[in-house]
Amino acid sequence: MAVVPLLGDGDAAPEAVAVFDEIRARRGTDYVNNFWRALAHDPVELRDVWDSIDRVMADGALDPLTKELIYIAVSTAHGCSYCVHSHTAGARAKGLTPDMHRELLAVIALASRTNALATSLGVPVDERFDVSDR
Amino acid sequence: MAVVPLLGDGDAAPEAVAVFDEIRARRGTDYVNNFWRALAHDPVELRDVWDSIDRVMADGALDPLTKELIYIAVSTAHGCSYCVHSHTAGARAKGLTPDMHRELLAVIALASRTNALATSLGVPVDERFDVSDR
Amino acid sequence: MAVVPLLGDGDAAPEAVAVFDEIRARRGTDYVNNFWRALAHDPVELRDVWDSIDRVMADGALDPLTKELIYIAVSTAHGCSYCVHSHTAGARAKGLTPDMHRELLAVIALASRTNALATSLGVPVDERFDVSDR
Amino acid sequence: MAVVPLLGDGDAAPEAVAVFDEIRARRGTDYVNNFWRALAHDPVELRDVWDSIDRVMADGALDPLTKELIYIAVSTAHGCSYCVHSHTAGARAKGLTPDMHRELLAVIALASRTNALATSLGVPVDERFDVSDR
Amino acid sequence: MAVVPLLGDGDAAPEAVAVFDEIRARRGTDYVNNFWRALAHDPVELRDVWDSIDRVMADGALDPLTKELIYIAVSTAHGCSYCVHSHTAGARAKGLTPDMHRELLAVIALASRTNALATSLGVPVDERFDVSDR
Amino acid sequence: MAVVPLLGDGDAAPEAVAVFDEIRARRGTDYVNNFWRALAHDPVELRDVWDSIDRVMADGALDPLTKELIYIAVSTAHGCSYCVHSHTAGARAKGLTPDMHRELLAVIALASRTNALATSLGVPVDERFDVSDR
Repeated sequence: MAVVPLLGDGDAAPEAVAVFDEIRARRGTDYVNNFWRALAHDPVELRDVWDSIDRVMADGALDPLTKELIYIAVSTAHGCSYCVHSHTAGARAKGLTPDMHRELLAVIALASRTNALATSLGVPVDERFDVSDR
Repeated sequence: MAVVPLLGDGDAAPEAVAVFDEIRARRGTDYVNNFWRALAHDPVELRDVWDSIDRVMADGALDPLTKELIYIAVSTAHGCSYCVHSHTAGARAKGLTPDMHRELLAVIALASRTNALATSLGVPVDERFDVSDR
Repeated sequence: MAVVPLLGDGDAAPEAVAVFDEIRARRGTDYVNNFWRALAHDPVELRDVWDSIDRVMADGALDPLTKELIYIAVSTAHGCSYCVHSHTAGARAKGLTPDMHRELLAVIALASRTNALATSLGVPVDERFDVSDR
Repeated sequence: MAVVPLLGDGDAAPEAVAVFDEIRARRGTDYVNNFWRALAHDPVELRDVWDSIDRVMADGALDPLTKELIYIAVSTAHGCSYCVHSHTAGARAKGLTPDMHRELLAVIALASRTNALATSLGVPVDERFDVSDR
Repeated sequence: MAVVPLLGDGDAAPEAVAVFDEIRARRGTDYVNNFWRALAHDPVELRDVWDSIDRVMADGALDPLTKELIYIAVSTAHGCSYCVHSHTAGARAKGLTPDMHRELLAVIALASRTNALATSLGVPVDERFDVSDR
Repeated sequence: MAVVPLLGDGDAAPEAVAVFDEIRARRGTDYVNNFWRALAHDPVELRDVWDSIDRVMADGALDPLTKELIYIAVSTAHGCSYCVHSHTAGARAKGLTPDMHRELLAVIALASRTNALATSLGVPVDERFDVSDR
């Protein structure tokens, strides 16, 4: 399924193919996954997303693997199956071990459980957690 | 607001106060935050949640601070304001720096953006991301 | 907060006040809660929602209290704090006991946990769960 | 997949087939899509949903295509793949151009990003946005 | 699809197979569904989830079928297709009738509608719904 | 509440104040709302979000008001109260009438209802909605 064609190199605009080429070069593979081929229907958004990933997912105060774990957590909570699959693959490419994966999923599951409890109880935020005027 | 009373030590069942005491001992503080005081209306669930946090959030293949980052990511995507506030405070207590916080939020925001793109495009999962029978 | 005025009987259209009167008569109280006063900015939608509640929440194959439990579960998962508060009050008016409330929240929390696990694992639906052509 | 049979004209109740006929007449096609065939297991809800669509999606202060864009936005945020696919097709039938589609998805993606930022920052609503007692 | 292998009895750890055996014994069937086979990659979490289901879904102040209805409601709101399918099958095994199913879905749909209205209107919670200090 | 300080012009970095100045100039007001003051803790993300809004929300194939409607729809479905309030105010500044607002909310509510139905029924996407290889 998809609501737009998945564009191959022969169908995409030159600006989109340029991004495909950067993806291939960065990853050292010929394969460009479906997300990018679908997003290529909008070369401007494609370029902006790719550049944002470059900026945001780079090594910094947090390392790239930790960032992939956060990505998987968000994708799970949003119910984005595509993103869970692609970023779990991406995390493995960056060093995710089975033990890390197990712990990641256990934390996501626990957070989902206590999120539901806090919301169904209507718990008011403690004053001490507010730092808006510090 | 809250849909149950926030129980103080004088109102809670002994099994709940026992958990309050463990929370205080673990954190080295007299303060027990509202989540636990609301959850104390169910001492069995309170005990199970506290023990699960003990098991799941402990140092392992992932360190406790990384686990808090994942927790904040899930809580954001579920729109749980209480959890965002309490776990951001918790992460700070475990060493979250302003730079790490900035990067965490940028990753959450980027993931939310691409989750929406993948879902609105209806992108099919690439065969190579499937490891169900490996 | 609110993005529209909360309309009192003196400000609302006659069609909206007619619904307010039905709410008061049905509940045996003078109080009309904020949801209805905000929704009164659209008397047509107000009427349709009230009539739908009348139809859907009535006693049937499921009793009205069970239906309130389902309502609270959905409201929690959507992060609608208003709805959690109002329907917990509504459930109490229909006989919700503290024990039932405890069990309700434990089920919501467990489902939230396993939902997250199923999604983060990308589990494919078993063929035997498909009844589309039976 | 589906948790109920997808009912054909020969299997559905007469009240459901009557709705199928209205769908076909309105759209000028023999095809009735799966959503309606699944919902036909409840002819009362089927009728009410169809009539609500008739009322809510009609031309008014907002035109029908704008309403489809809003529908796609909600469906994306709820992670409803079926709805994204069916309403993107519906929007195209009402005049959605590729440029409009690109802009729609870019807005959905941006909103998802800033929603996540506002929630993860715990930003309090500005007093001036409150119009509850105006 | 799946991001981990679905483990058969020959591939899973003994601790996981022990849970599989309990599932089969409890349900009186040889079949172990995909959720458990995926979760078996983490025998500790598998055990904890299975024991939690045992504790939480047991007959109590709420009966097991009512608990399944709540489970389906949460799973729908989280967009977990797997969970909707498996728990609808589970509810049928516990006595869900077509009439009950119709009413369940109508309540879920109505709650989803009014959740959206309350949130888009920004309705403030009525003081009388607050029981935090009672 | 907030998990970071809301920065005034005297506390924010010069790069952030530069964005504040652009916001004020664009809107013809001295007021900078809380979202920007919270996001100012990360001047790089602040700049990128502001520039993205400039690019994405500009007049194009869709007009700016239609884009605000889509924004409100997404914000509602994500349960972001802040965003609902700020973008409803923004939409009013761009010409949202009470009639348009009523219709917007009715569409959001209807979509939320049918999203829930499609998900709880597990409806498979019709083949004809797939345009992935066209």
